[in-house]
Amino acid sequence: MDSIRIALAQINPTVGDVRGNADRIIAYARNAAALGAGIVAFPELALSGYHPRDLLASRGFLNACSLELKRVWESVPEITMLVGLPLLESSATNAAAVCSGGLMRGAFHKKHMPGLGTLDESRYFQTASELGLIKFADKLIGVNLREDLWYLEGPAERQCSAGASLIINMSAWPYVSGRSGHTEHLASSFASRCSTPVAFVNMAGASDELIFEGASLVVGADGKTIARARNFVEDLLVVDVPLETSAEAGQIKDDVRVIQLTEPANDKPLPTIPEREIPEPMAPEHALYSALATALVDLVEKGGYKGVMLVMSGGLASDLAACMAADSIGSASVHALIADGRWAPSAKGCAELLGINTVEAPSMSAGMRELGAALMDESVALGLLPISSISKSDLASGGITLYAETAGLFAPLKDLWGPDVLRLSAWRNSMGEVIPREAIEVASKPNPEEAALKVLIEDDLGFEEAMKVGEIGPAGLEELLARIQGAEALRRQSPPGPKVTQKAIGLEWALPLVARFMPNL
Amino acid sequence: MDSIRIALAQINPTVGDVRGNADRIIAYARNAAALGAGIVAFPELALSGYHPRDLLASRGFLNACSLELKRVWESVPEITMLVGLPLLESSATNAAAVCSGGLMRGAFHKKHMPGLGTLDESRYFQTASELGLIKFADKLIGVNLREDLWYLEGPAERQCSAGASLIINMSAWPYVSGRSGHTEHLASSFASRCSTPVAFVNMAGASDELIFEGASLVVGADGKTIARARNFVEDLLVVDVPLETSAEAGQIKDDVRVIQLTEPANDKPLPTIPEREIPEPMAPEHALYSALATALVDLVEKGGYKGVMLVMSGGLASDLAACMAADSIGSASVHALIADGRWAPSAKGCAELLGINTVEAPSMSAGMRELGAALMDESVALGLLPISSISKSDLASGGITLYAETAGLFAPLKDLWGPDVLRLSAWRNSMGEVIPREAIEVASKPNPEEAALKVLIEDDLGFEEAMKVGEIGPAGLEELLARIQGAEALRRQSPPGPKVTQKAIGLEWALPLVARFMPNL
Repeated sequence: MDSIRIALAQINPTVGDVRGNADRIIAYARNAAALGAGIVAFPELALSGYHPRDLLASRGFLNACSLELKRVWESVPEITMLVGLPLLESSATNAAAVCSGGLMRGAFHKKHMPGLGTLDESRYFQTASELGLIKFADKLIGVNLREDLWYLEGPAERQCSAGASLIINMSAWPYVSGRSGHTEHLASSFASRCSTPVAFVNMAGASDELIFEGASLVVGADGKTIARARNFVEDLLVVDVPLETSAEAGQIKDDVRVIQLTEPANDKPLPTIPEREIPEPMAPEHALYSALATALVDLVEKGGYKGVMLVMSGGLASDLAACMAADSIGSASVHALIADGRWAPSAKGCAELLGINTVEAPSMSAGMRELGAALMDESVALGLLPISSISKSDLASGGITLYAETAGLFAPLKDLWGPDVLRLSAWRNSMGEVIPREAIEVASKPNPEEAALKVLIEDDLGFEEAMKVGEIGPAGLEELLARIQGAEALRRQSPPGPKVTQKAIGLEWALPLVARFMPNL
Repeated sequence: MDSIRIALAQINPTVGDVRGNADRIIAYARNAAALGAGIVAFPELALSGYHPRDLLASRGFLNACSLELKRVWESVPEITMLVGLPLLESSATNAAAVCSGGLMRGAFHKKHMPGLGTLDESRYFQTASELGLIKFADKLIGVNLREDLWYLEGPAERQCSAGASLIINMSAWPYVSGRSGHTEHLASSFASRCSTPVAFVNMAGASDELIFEGASLVVGADGKTIARARNFVEDLLVVDVPLETSAEAGQIKDDVRVIQLTEPANDKPLPTIPEREIPEPMAPEHALYSALATALVDLVEKGGYKGVMLVMSGGLASDLAACMAADSIGSASVHALIADGRWAPSAKGCAELLGINTVEAPSMSAGMRELGAALMDESVALGLLPISSISKSDLASGGITLYAETAGLFAPLKDLWGPDVLRLSAWRNSMGEVIPREAIEVASKPNPEEAALKVLIEDDLGFEEAMKVGEIGPAGLEELLARIQGAEALRRQSPPGPKVTQKAIGLEWALPLVARFMPNL
């Protein structure tokens, strides 16, 4: 059995910083070449960052991507690079550029575009008409982008039919809580179904409302994982992939394009790859906590903030948000406005244990909006990112005030239901107790509304189901439905926050601004 | 030549109010029957309102639509009704139900779904696999929904090939400024290309961020307009449509479904239709002003508000917003918070001419956010809709403060560039001078930034073009680009507002939350 050494460069680009991203790509490609890899693959839209949105409408932006791609291919001639970028053909495409020997050899384009929320691609990119394969060291390799791997009878399967002995999938795959092993499962079942190994290179880090888990991996033709990269952070995975079949030219059809690459000089023995074990999968709470922390730290760093500021009310959500900020960006860069009132000592206690900076907030008698305004003003003055501790439950049921609790430029817990806030807080305390027990106790009291909210919104179920689960009765459910509908105006102006479920508010779930629906219960 | 009497019921439904919308449909259908129409057609999603968004995820909502449809068809057996609604087949469809004789005879489904902004349909509805025709009085009539008319070689053309002698298109077509005659042009060119008359029934009114212009129309086989309904408001258009060809059964293909309707009893002479002239098209400024006023008045009425409240600063935008509110919902229901400072007398002068209520605002020394908070608090106390006077230019360039100038639950001028605010103000004053000349003079000063903003955002042009148009030079353009990118966080939390361009902020144009792109100028 032959084998081929490939590298998966799991990078964390900054959207729009095309020059900086190109520098990063060059550095990773050189490392991969030094480790003897013949091919290095980068994530989808690695050069632009994911997602550039309407920067893509600007010809100047697309030109900048092309110019920086040229600098990449000229800088690293010694390895074949598969670089994800927006590439202007007759219109913009979500492309994988194939570069080697100081030249661009061609590019492949993505076929299946999602049309949802922050993954909104169909309106920006034209779809591929061709399947892409590269011929490298006498082997055919199928190259495709995210969704193109997982459509049944889709591009990846057709690449296998065309003789591909390896599939390389370049992705910017958004993290969803509780589905950490999903990509591995998909890659594994594809590999065993088609008896073809799969190399999946994913983006790391976070941008906008998306978190990218990394965990790039190589799965053998038997579906077993050969190697897996770290979660959430940048990594370079270099793997010798065993290949079984070789190209059979007869199967190549009209809509398949093969880019022939020059045979790499194979006179030197390959350097030894540093040994690394396949890491254990992260526990669900650990993964979710890390995901949210990644979203926060990446926004602080990429946005050029000096730290974060938040209002601490003594409520569990603001304690948890403070923990996350302290753990990810360091206590010294976290500033808390302690809201006065009965719970101020609890909030102060948590802040002290975390070692973060505290500031006296304006008196609550001035109103919650005054506190929100203070958060915004003080943050601007200190160059900090103001964050809001609102949860999905707050936004769904509308039990908060616009510009008060919602004040902030980012809401790290926006996609967490109340019980998830509790679960994460308990997990964080199990790593070292920092959140006051009294805050946990208050939040632990049974809340029948929470269960009904989740059923109504996340599970698309009917009102009968919600009544059963929530035990709130017809009158309670009517009142809750009226509040859910009435809170849409609040949700429309809530800060952005990291998506961690399949139904993030605003991105994947929204009501009409005015809705008057009431079922017959 | 034969003719058929049809009615186009241009109604203004309320999203989610399925029972109220059904009542309205029943009333219009009865009026149409009384005027001798054999068929009455309603707009797309007339029963649910447009757009129900994630109400569609609720089985209970879809059930309510089906139940109310049943009440409609049982209530008006004497006419064939084409009713737009979300209909649950194997999953939800954007459907036209065909009802007559106290029964539902079948339903057709929309094929081409947009995936953009508030028109987001592709994620909610499955697409049609069949073409729909009804056979009525020995004639074949093609029934389709919005986009299905305007795709070249799309469903409507194929309905003509299948023998349709009339096309009925049911739409909820969003108004775009300067394109008022567009639907008429499309219908006319379709009709003359296919030598088939077209009846286009459009929604009226506004909901959420969309405005529906009405202007339902009937175009003859020669492309000439036979009748046109009023703009923006409800109307019932009853027309005798001359039909040239008759059904030829041989052209019916496999994917075409024909619903046979029982021959209407034709023993009584048809009543005379009240004569009405085809209205002159509205002047562009008049149409735009009416569109924005419609958005405002519909939100106030459908949202159950007692009126509106806004901050008047003496700036032209708040004068214009106050005019629109006074003109559409009546002076007595409009309340202005007069901001103190040099321009207060100008604002007061405008408010007095309009006859609206004025309130002293908190002193500006407390900060602009204080004023925003006062607007929100006072509106809630009085049951009023708080509106913001921010314009597209403000949001694009970021020259405003979050929760201060942006405070409000709706921003009627959100999709207007500065020069459009000026143009509309001048037009409004030409109807009777209410806006102080000094405010108009200040806003009339040349602003090179405005032109550059429009070129960069609305016209997707490059930086060279923006420099030429805006005359702001490379350094000025760099500074402007940085401000545009930096204002995304502000835009994300700005209030919703009516879309009147093809690039409404948030709906059709958005940047990444953090973008660091800077071209080489």
